[in-house]
Amino acid sequence: MTHPHDPPGGRFITFEGPEGAGKTTQITHLTRHLDVAGVPHLLTREPGGTPLGTRVREVVLDPALHIDPLPEFLLYSASRAQLVQDVIGPALARGEVVVCDRYADSSLAYQGAGRGLDAGLLRSVTHAATGGLTPALTVLLDLDPRLGLERAAARGQPDRLEQADLGFHDRVRAGFLALAAGEPDRFLVLDATRPADDLARTIWDAVRARLALG
Amino acid sequence: MTHPHDPPGGRFITFEGPEGAGKTTQITHLTRHLDVAGVPHLLTREPGGTPLGTRVREVVLDPALHIDPLPEFLLYSASRAQLVQDVIGPALARGEVVVCDRYADSSLAYQGAGRGLDAGLLRSVTHAATGGLTPALTVLLDLDPRLGLERAAARGQPDRLEQADLGFHDRVRAGFLALAAGEPDRFLVLDATRPADDLARTIWDAVRARLALG
Repeated sequence: MTHPHDPPGGRFITFEGPEGAGKTTQITHLTRHLDVAGVPHLLTREPGGTPLGTRVREVVLDPALHIDPLPEFLLYSASRAQLVQDVIGPALARGEVVVCDRYADSSLAYQGAGRGLDAGLLRSVTHAATGGLTPALTVLLDLDPRLGLERAAARGQPDRLEQADLGFHDRVRAGFLALAAGEPDRFLVLDATRPADDLARTIWDAVRARLALG
Repeated sequence: MTHPHDPPGGRFITFEGPEGAGKTTQITHLTRHLDVAGVPHLLTREPGGTPLGTRVREVVLDPALHIDPLPEFLLYSASRAQLVQDVIGPALARGEVVVCDRYADSSLAYQGAGRGLDAGLLRSVTHAATGGLTPALTVLLDLDPRLGLERAAARGQPDRLEQADLGFHDRVRAGFLALAAGEPDRFLVLDATRPADDLARTIWDAVRARLALG
């Protein structure tokens, strides 16, 4: 149940981490748990989640396009702004739990720590794009980039992000861990090499505790 | 000829103004004058001008998509950043005159004055996207929005911008005029209802004088 004094992001859960860390698997486990518990919820993802976001997703993940780090960040932010306005905000206002596959932390880690864009600019644009909406819980599936790239490659053609160099992925990982260290109450950092069922149980326990789902 | 002390934007010319003001006609006149004078030049436009910009243009001008003012601005800024990096900057570095159909002033007028986005945010994102590159000369073709919309409608199907309400277009016009008043040395404000040949002559005189083309 929501209460009038709930913060706007009180039921907002995001998943972060590199390609191949198992985000999709864990999101599937979590939405099943929410289904069984009868908790109304909405699943969405970045970039995407709206007609605009779908178009932006096609552009940013097109390996044929040359996109510099700043325009890449601005495209992700455009998708994010429309997603918060049209999908995440209204669902939270209806009292639903919102589960989002990637959110603003991905920009800070990939375009900030990874590509070296100015953190102040990233934060001011992100604050404008999200209206300051911050998740109540962010599950970070932490993984050595070497293992993540192997897992992603085993699934098929790597996309543009996955083709970038290992140094970049090491900086992204360090960026995620620094964000988590700065907001320990929001982040749940998990070793992505743990068995999937074990991770799913830990995540469900955390969601029940933080969102007071009983 | 360029000199080592030329500012980076010293040969950069932009055209601004509403739909239907005759920008395309005047840009055609100017590029013919530059051809005849043997001045190397490059013509480009916003949004567009790069493979990324072309894709962004298709998105922002798609009347079927719902796009809020902030994501709209971020999409234009993404296109702008890639255009400056890949096209405008290199051409200026080669000593060419660059003529651009719309640039950052359009964002300040349309998304700022027109849609009410925070000017400070627009300016900081724009500064990052352009690396601070400012035109040496901006030709503003000023026109009562009522006349501009009539002209645009006479040419065929109005796009998404053209369908917006007149109050919006009045604010955009006032926004452009305020920008021009703030930077009188950069802006050449012209009454777009003057005969096209007459306008073309005035613009060519200004370009020769400001760019020291002789």
